[in-house]
Amino acid sequence: MDRLENIINRVKLPDYAIGQEAQRRLDSLTKPQGSLGRLEDIAKQLCIIRGGAAKLAQPKPAAAVFAADHGVAAGGVSAYPQEVTQQMIYNFLAGGAGINVLCRQAGADVWVIDVGVAGDMSQAQGLIQAKVAHGTADMTKGPVMTMNQALDAIVVGAQTAQRLIEKGYDLLIPGEMGIGNTTPCSAITAVICGLRPEQVMGRGTGVDDAGLSRKLAALKTALDVNKPDPANPLEVLCKVGGLEIAAMCGYILEAAARGVPVMLDGFISTTAALVAGGLCPTAIDYCFSGHGSVEIGHRAQLEKLGLRPILTLEMRLGEGTGAAVAMNVLRAAVAIYSEMATFAEAGVTGH
Amino acid sequence: MDRLENIINRVKLPDYAIGQEAQRRLDSLTKPQGSLGRLEDIAKQLCIIRGGAAKLAQPKPAAAVFAADHGVAAGGVSAYPQEVTQQMIYNFLAGGAGINVLCRQAGADVWVIDVGVAGDMSQAQGLIQAKVAHGTADMTKGPVMTMNQALDAIVVGAQTAQRLIEKGYDLLIPGEMGIGNTTPCSAITAVICGLRPEQVMGRGTGVDDAGLSRKLAALKTALDVNKPDPANPLEVLCKVGGLEIAAMCGYILEAAARGVPVMLDGFISTTAALVAGGLCPTAIDYCFSGHGSVEIGHRAQLEKLGLRPILTLEMRLGEGTGAAVAMNVLRAAVAIYSEMATFAEAGVTGH
Repeated sequence: MDRLENIINRVKLPDYAIGQEAQRRLDSLTKPQGSLGRLEDIAKQLCIIRGGAAKLAQPKPAAAVFAADHGVAAGGVSAYPQEVTQQMIYNFLAGGAGINVLCRQAGADVWVIDVGVAGDMSQAQGLIQAKVAHGTADMTKGPVMTMNQALDAIVVGAQTAQRLIEKGYDLLIPGEMGIGNTTPCSAITAVICGLRPEQVMGRGTGVDDAGLSRKLAALKTALDVNKPDPANPLEVLCKVGGLEIAAMCGYILEAAARGVPVMLDGFISTTAALVAGGLCPTAIDYCFSGHGSVEIGHRAQLEKLGLRPILTLEMRLGEGTGAAVAMNVLRAAVAIYSEMATFAEAGVTGH
Repeated sequence: MDRLENIINRVKLPDYAIGQEAQRRLDSLTKPQGSLGRLEDIAKQLCIIRGGAAKLAQPKPAAAVFAADHGVAAGGVSAYPQEVTQQMIYNFLAGGAGINVLCRQAGADVWVIDVGVAGDMSQAQGLIQAKVAHGTADMTKGPVMTMNQALDAIVVGAQTAQRLIEKGYDLLIPGEMGIGNTTPCSAITAVICGLRPEQVMGRGTGVDDAGLSRKLAALKTALDVNKPDPANPLEVLCKVGGLEIAAMCGYILEAAARGVPVMLDGFISTTAALVAGGLCPTAIDYCFSGHGSVEIGHRAQLEKLGLRPILTLEMRLGEGTGAAVAMNVLRAAVAIYSEMATFAEAGVTGH
């Protein structure tokens, strides 16, 4: 518990006064005021997070893909068998998955962390070994993990953020892999946003109608059996969460504690942000929402957090892929802020 | 007239059967089917346009910024004086404008063409000299240009496309600069989409309420004086159009004739696409819509053309800037199509 307090206590509210200074620079550039829309908002928020309105350098981003398994997957809530979690890790390590390709395109590196895969991954070359448990327990039977396991997983995430920042990365993407993980995310979202299961439950990576019924039944049973307290995000995590979700939560909190911006992906990583925001609302000031997911629960999450997605491209792959694509837009925002000529420099008659 | 027919006759319907082959490849990649949403659609359409479902190379894009002035600008329809057209051309040539910065970020080159600036630009280094007239006439008094001028400007656009494609560019962005040009674009949109002036008239680069009233009055007068025939896009262009709009129209048509994809920007370049589509509907099969503009007329244009914007970032700068940002998403689509591992290659259990 002290380990978590220690992170949260270091998260400071960024200085929003810097936004005015940044807006003055944006208004001096050779364009009508405000005409670059959300690119201007992104540049401004980045200045606020970085703590200065001087020209911005292009970020050096990294995605950390936290992998874990879920007891609930045994109940047929996913279109894919659990072994796919491990198979996909090898795909990540070989550079062939969506997150690898989209991070390469956006100039971001990918790191893969085993925080809770059900199976021996100790021989996987390049995988960061930080297994807290061999997957979670089945949420329809009781809590999925102990409080200690949840805290351990949060610390894995925080240590990953620390390590990446020490390596020189200055923008962090939370990524994930875990067959079945839209079910715990739906559960967390229902509890924290105060919604009925039907309002947050989507098809994940593509279950059919029968699978969707099983997901919904599992979710209802899990909430009934566990009765998580919405006011206690850690309890919610232990009862109906997941190890990769806990890790992403710690990752987001540690990034915020170090003043480093986070680019969230869709439904899964925003679930982690929901827990992080429950523990420490200020952490969300460091977060951008990269992509508005097709998953219906994602909209409720974003409303709760006061975030607007940069992109809506009907993606529903997860891994961090939507955040990777959004990095391009953030790069465009940095470029306009730092490279455009001012009216004075260009000798153009202003407004 | 023959010159235009000669372009239009070369525009062929792309082979949509290739889309099925491209979808088979997309479905073989290590992701749930369809889970990359619009990235998949973009990759597929690019395969269809390029005429093959093999792996795609990253495009080499260029933006052509066509500059021209508008007689109607004298009526105070813009927040900026007409001299800004010329000043901004020097800014483009020096690399300091929004389109320069965003094209650099997206790996695209910028070319600037004088197709109708009101003033002597013959000494401007690096400017492509193709002036058809020193700006258009005032649309509130009668036609803005002759049929010959409109055709000349279309040919300037077509020759620009030809020249860029011969230089090795394989994706073309239409860009523009012309103080006052949202007014002719509103006029064209009202006529071709059959809408009232109020339904297509926005604030452009940011006129105030008085300016908006002047714009609306000018638009109503222009439509009343000219009575353009909606079924005759060339006549619409001559009566209430602009030289850069005509040039972009020719540029789009020639790109389509050569099987080269076009990334449209917002309201101004989509007006050109509206005219191009009126002359040759098949040309639109080669067009992507990069960015959904804040300008209210843009939505009507996109509906008419059957296009959906890739991005909606509340931009309203023009120049081609929204298309430049959207290039990043197209690059992401190309990357997933060509670089992701298949289920078989990665040894991952499929759906």
